[in-house]
Amino acid sequence: MTMHDVGLVPFNTLSVSRAEAFALANTFDRPTLVLDVEKVGANYLLLKEGLGDAHIHYAVKANPAREVIAKLVSLGSHFDAASRGEIEMCLGLGARPETISFGNTIKRASDIAFAHAAGVTLFAVDSEEEMEKIAAHAPGASVYIRLIVENSAADWPLSRKFGCRPSMALRLLERAVELGLSPVGFSFHVGSQTRRSAMWAPVLDEVAEVWTAAHEAGHDLTMLNIGGGFPAFYGDVIEPTVIYGASVMRQVRERFGDVVVMAEPGRGMVADAGVIAAEVLLVSRKSDADLHRWVYLDIGKFSGLAETMDEAIRYQFVTPHDGGATGACVLAGPSCDSADVLYEKRPVELPLALRGGDRILIRNTGAYTTSYSSVGFNGFPPLDLVVI
Amino acid sequence: MTMHDVGLVPFNTLSVSRAEAFALANTFDRPTLVLDVEKVGANYLLLKEGLGDAHIHYAVKANPAREVIAKLVSLGSHFDAASRGEIEMCLGLGARPETISFGNTIKRASDIAFAHAAGVTLFAVDSEEEMEKIAAHAPGASVYIRLIVENSAADWPLSRKFGCRPSMALRLLERAVELGLSPVGFSFHVGSQTRRSAMWAPVLDEVAEVWTAAHEAGHDLTMLNIGGGFPAFYGDVIEPTVIYGASVMRQVRERFGDVVVMAEPGRGMVADAGVIAAEVLLVSRKSDADLHRWVYLDIGKFSGLAETMDEAIRYQFVTPHDGGATGACVLAGPSCDSADVLYEKRPVELPLALRGGDRILIRNTGAYTTSYSSVGFNGFPPLDLVVI
Repeated sequence: MTMHDVGLVPFNTLSVSRAEAFALANTFDRPTLVLDVEKVGANYLLLKEGLGDAHIHYAVKANPAREVIAKLVSLGSHFDAASRGEIEMCLGLGARPETISFGNTIKRASDIAFAHAAGVTLFAVDSEEEMEKIAAHAPGASVYIRLIVENSAADWPLSRKFGCRPSMALRLLERAVELGLSPVGFSFHVGSQTRRSAMWAPVLDEVAEVWTAAHEAGHDLTMLNIGGGFPAFYGDVIEPTVIYGASVMRQVRERFGDVVVMAEPGRGMVADAGVIAAEVLLVSRKSDADLHRWVYLDIGKFSGLAETMDEAIRYQFVTPHDGGATGACVLAGPSCDSADVLYEKRPVELPLALRGGDRILIRNTGAYTTSYSSVGFNGFPPLDLVVI
Repeated sequence: MTMHDVGLVPFNTLSVSRAEAFALANTFDRPTLVLDVEKVGANYLLLKEGLGDAHIHYAVKANPAREVIAKLVSLGSHFDAASRGEIEMCLGLGARPETISFGNTIKRASDIAFAHAAGVTLFAVDSEEEMEKIAAHAPGASVYIRLIVENSAADWPLSRKFGCRPSMALRLLERAVELGLSPVGFSFHVGSQTRRSAMWAPVLDEVAEVWTAAHEAGHDLTMLNIGGGFPAFYGDVIEPTVIYGASVMRQVRERFGDVVVMAEPGRGMVADAGVIAAEVLLVSRKSDADLHRWVYLDIGKFSGLAETMDEAIRYQFVTPHDGGATGACVLAGPSCDSADVLYEKRPVELPLALRGGDRILIRNTGAYTTSYSSVGFNGFPPLDLVVI
């Protein structure tokens, strides 16, 4: 029996997560991410179990909440930082500098100098110009070369923005040596939200070819950074974390042997630790010919749900009317911005009983929500955060 | 002779705006919007000259800087607010409640009640459900019905997110009367960045048909809200503000006679009052086969340049090397996010001499930049603002 059958308790509270239970038991005056930091810790331990002796560098950008960083510091996690700001936060919360990699291939010269002075020794690079900046401002640093990979089967394949082609990668290894840097290996990104571990095989094959070519050219590489891509549940089945991690590591070991492996999970570590408590503002039709209802929430693309861009990430919703008859809806945010539409190409099935004023929960929203939120577009405050 | 010819002064300072001169004369440690509030005031007066006796409601969302609102209050402008937050700010800076319209068609019930209690009397609506909320929480209020228009020729036509079809609009007028509200007229939006005033004709024809039908149905409408759409200069020629405004008003008067006209300029009021001072972080190629250079700035889609989405708005750039030979570039932001690419489908011509560390100005960025900025994606701070 679901709760709406009895008409008293608003949500089905069977088998909900701790964050969801908290969100149901409390009210919030504005859209709020409830984040369960114990769940983040549990996810870290599961990933660690799966990935074995790989160094896990949490991708801070996925959710830079101080409580998340502090929890992961306490568990021994390493960190992948995108900026000086993220490095400062990790250091401030007790992370040792040698556990922080500066993983952005686009760095301000003064930020490289800051990181170097702070004791950070490992930097990402994908171009000669960036290599020269690192040599100038972090002399002697270790660098890994980010490769562009072609064979991604991820839900959100990454563009050509990051990484270089194999021929250039080999030249960058030479250049690193000339500049007095220590080229330790390669990195790549299989693509965000790579749902099955078997999808890694063609990408790993591709990277292994470059690895072999580098060794043949005399570079004794010692480190492979396998990046992120560890999936979260957004409705399509994903493999359990430990099995997934172990499968990826098995595939890595088959191709690269006994190298130091580094991984940069972000989404896979925090997404399912969070749930957003939001409100339906309006359910309407604009014409009698409208096929779908329009459902407007008090949260949208500019206040936390940026990853609905191109409808790439499809969130799951919980409403007080779940279990009742549903119909297709176009889902949109509250701003006066025509681009603030969440799902329109593929409408969302929501209960016919849904009304303005109803609460709505958005599941598995612990990653890439609070930090994408605008400072106050249209006068709406940024997504609030409650850590439990 | 341009300044780079002498190699001493970094930018061509001939005929630059006051904001640009300030940006050139100062250094900034992070991306900063320099906003000339006197220019905003001048733009208001030009629009007022063009639009004659129309009531100008500044669309606060375009740039909610307190200095902008205060300036416009002092000049007698009215305001179009998207949220309770914007209403509170306008009231706090001295705007009288009867000069503020609550123009968002998606409102939280408690925000309607707040606005009503604060003395706001004019509300936008495009659905029966919203009309009922207004009747419940702002009894007796004046409402205007937002129409969907089909014939937009704007650079950024708005989606179906806002407005209703004519048949529903007529029904909403009836419903307003039943609910004890005062239906005063219609609103529409010709589309953002409608570059020539002649483009308004087909849209005004469309609205006039509904207007006539409403009068035939016995509704004595008194107000036409012509929305925004007033263009800013982004490289394509636009008509001078006064001529543009006067032409729009002439077209309105031809069709609607002596009604009260309300306009909601945002972009056209603030865009050219602002310039962003930014920095080039990296210029690189990813492979020898790359057709274009990649130019990475310290500002991107998530720190102020959200309107580059789909490459809709094309900004103009000023560099220390202007006048020298140029080549096509893909332009991207600094974050570790593959979606943070500004212009790729239509690359940007930039000087071949451009290097990491160079300053770069982004012109006409006073509208829809600071407020879209994320709170700190990737650890980068939000776009800073200096008002001069």
